[in-house]
Amino acid sequence: MTSTDSAAAGHATPLLVSTPAELRAATTRLLDVARVTGAGGREPSLGLVPTMGGLHEGHAMLARTARADVDVVVASIFVNPLQFGDQADLERYPRTLEADLRLLGAEGTHVVFAPSVQDMYPGGDPLVRLHAGRMGEVLEGASRPGHFDGMLTVVAKLLNLGLPGVAAGYRAYFGEKDAQQLALIRRMVLDLNIPVRIDGVPIVRDDDGLALSSRNRFLSDEERGSALVLSRVLRSLRERTRRGADIDLAAARAEVAAARGVELDYLEVVDPTTFLPATPVFGGADAPADAPGGRLAVVAARVGAVRLIDNTRLDPVG
Amino acid sequence: MTSTDSAAAGHATPLLVSTPAELRAATTRLLDVARVTGAGGREPSLGLVPTMGGLHEGHAMLARTARADVDVVVASIFVNPLQFGDQADLERYPRTLEADLRLLGAEGTHVVFAPSVQDMYPGGDPLVRLHAGRMGEVLEGASRPGHFDGMLTVVAKLLNLGLPGVAAGYRAYFGEKDAQQLALIRRMVLDLNIPVRIDGVPIVRDDDGLALSSRNRFLSDEERGSALVLSRVLRSLRERTRRGADIDLAAARAEVAAARGVELDYLEVVDPTTFLPATPVFGGADAPADAPGGRLAVVAARVGAVRLIDNTRLDPVG
Repeated sequence: MTSTDSAAAGHATPLLVSTPAELRAATTRLLDVARVTGAGGREPSLGLVPTMGGLHEGHAMLARTARADVDVVVASIFVNPLQFGDQADLERYPRTLEADLRLLGAEGTHVVFAPSVQDMYPGGDPLVRLHAGRMGEVLEGASRPGHFDGMLTVVAKLLNLGLPGVAAGYRAYFGEKDAQQLALIRRMVLDLNIPVRIDGVPIVRDDDGLALSSRNRFLSDEERGSALVLSRVLRSLRERTRRGADIDLAAARAEVAAARGVELDYLEVVDPTTFLPATPVFGGADAPADAPGGRLAVVAARVGAVRLIDNTRLDPVG
Repeated sequence: MTSTDSAAAGHATPLLVSTPAELRAATTRLLDVARVTGAGGREPSLGLVPTMGGLHEGHAMLARTARADVDVVVASIFVNPLQFGDQADLERYPRTLEADLRLLGAEGTHVVFAPSVQDMYPGGDPLVRLHAGRMGEVLEGASRPGHFDGMLTVVAKLLNLGLPGVAAGYRAYFGEKDAQQLALIRRMVLDLNIPVRIDGVPIVRDDDGLALSSRNRFLSDEERGSALVLSRVLRSLRERTRRGADIDLAAARAEVAAARGVELDYLEVVDPTTFLPATPVFGGADAPADAPGGRLAVVAARVGAVRLIDNTRLDPVG
């Protein structure tokens, strides 16, 4: 008897999986089976029953309701550290996997997804999270600060991981000019398991070097001339880095600030993944051998009434 | 020439849609066409290009890159109020739909999704939002507080709205005991357009009335006896309401607090959708005719070392 057979028969041990890839493979296979064996070519349905384990008859009712409604039932068992404010409560939360599997098997649950903390949070604690807002501040939220943010974050992840019929070919495209936006979107997709591939597309510049922006149309001719200092300073930083020369951020900032009508907001060198500060001087003898594909120089300034941003990658010496 | 033909031909006016349902219908149809006309039975791919309009050659490069990568290209045009801290900046942000459509048509974009604010936020401002965390507090985030939370929220919505191949039959099951959790999950699904149906399942109780909980196992026999005051008080509130009698929340709170070893956290009557306070006295002559299917009485208390919650719906007089 294959695991698919036993799952379809119900009252058997559910298929136990622990990684998102195993979950995707298991549900895809079971949905394929249901598509063939199901009634009249209807698309098969999938029900997700998120739990933290320690299952009792209340959870059995969830699994039973799902089994009556849908073709393929997936239960998840994950004690989510994010939603426990109290470490002692987290540690003593009941963990009863064997009994949980028996209970779910008796209810005809097909797949049990029981990931480790590492399986769920491979990038460490999620940086991008759900925020419950004012509905999360009252009653339970008042007694358990942060609880609902952590709960929503893991439920969003589980809903995304359980999404049936997700095709590999879903991509979304964002410009690299908004570099911090792009980094945050990549992080959101990682942290929340959104089933999409994010593609960054290089900055497009006018012939004079100015990065294209919807807001450029608001610049006067004179302001436009002043705005060129941004791309010029970034280009200079990149070229010095390519030559292996040190860069002087203070001097670069002064050059921007000295341009007529330009009010510098920031000019920094950051890690392009985290946007935390990166060592601005590298590329010389002290450059770390494992520098992850360069750092990013980012600049923002107000030119007249228009706020402009730009950036360039500072490649390590190859 | 049908709109599908013109879209497939490229260099034509994209199909313009404004509601999530129209978007879903359009992409489903185009993916079906691509599945038939595409090479070798491969699942067709979809690329999303989120923009705020005011398009220039940088955006054209996004659309062009997507068109080279995938079978069906969807661009969105939405000036997202959530990510503008500055109302003046929001108001003067360029809106150039006709020119935008020409530019995207020239790049072979098939569908343009240009929703209204009402289309995107039918429930008003989202209560549940994305939170960018510390990556959203530096540089652009320091200059534009809240910008990245609003940006991530709308990008999460757009990614969910564009998800290809979403089947209708995806459901997730949660117990009604955790009523505030369930309300927040429903609100998250609404606010972020997660393609799932949420089903609440009624509370299961032991014969003595205690709501089942994984934490009940930590109660001593004596504590368990004390804990029964929670369901008893809720049942009494429900029965008084059914009879059309007034309820006295202060007296109910006093009854819970007087039980041996029970420390009351809260006992409130709330709107089950928002968890905002609801008028506790109703069902009499003053009951609003449009009371939306009852209010919820919710209670939380610590019994010994164990925190317990329970709730019951207070039905309006039928």
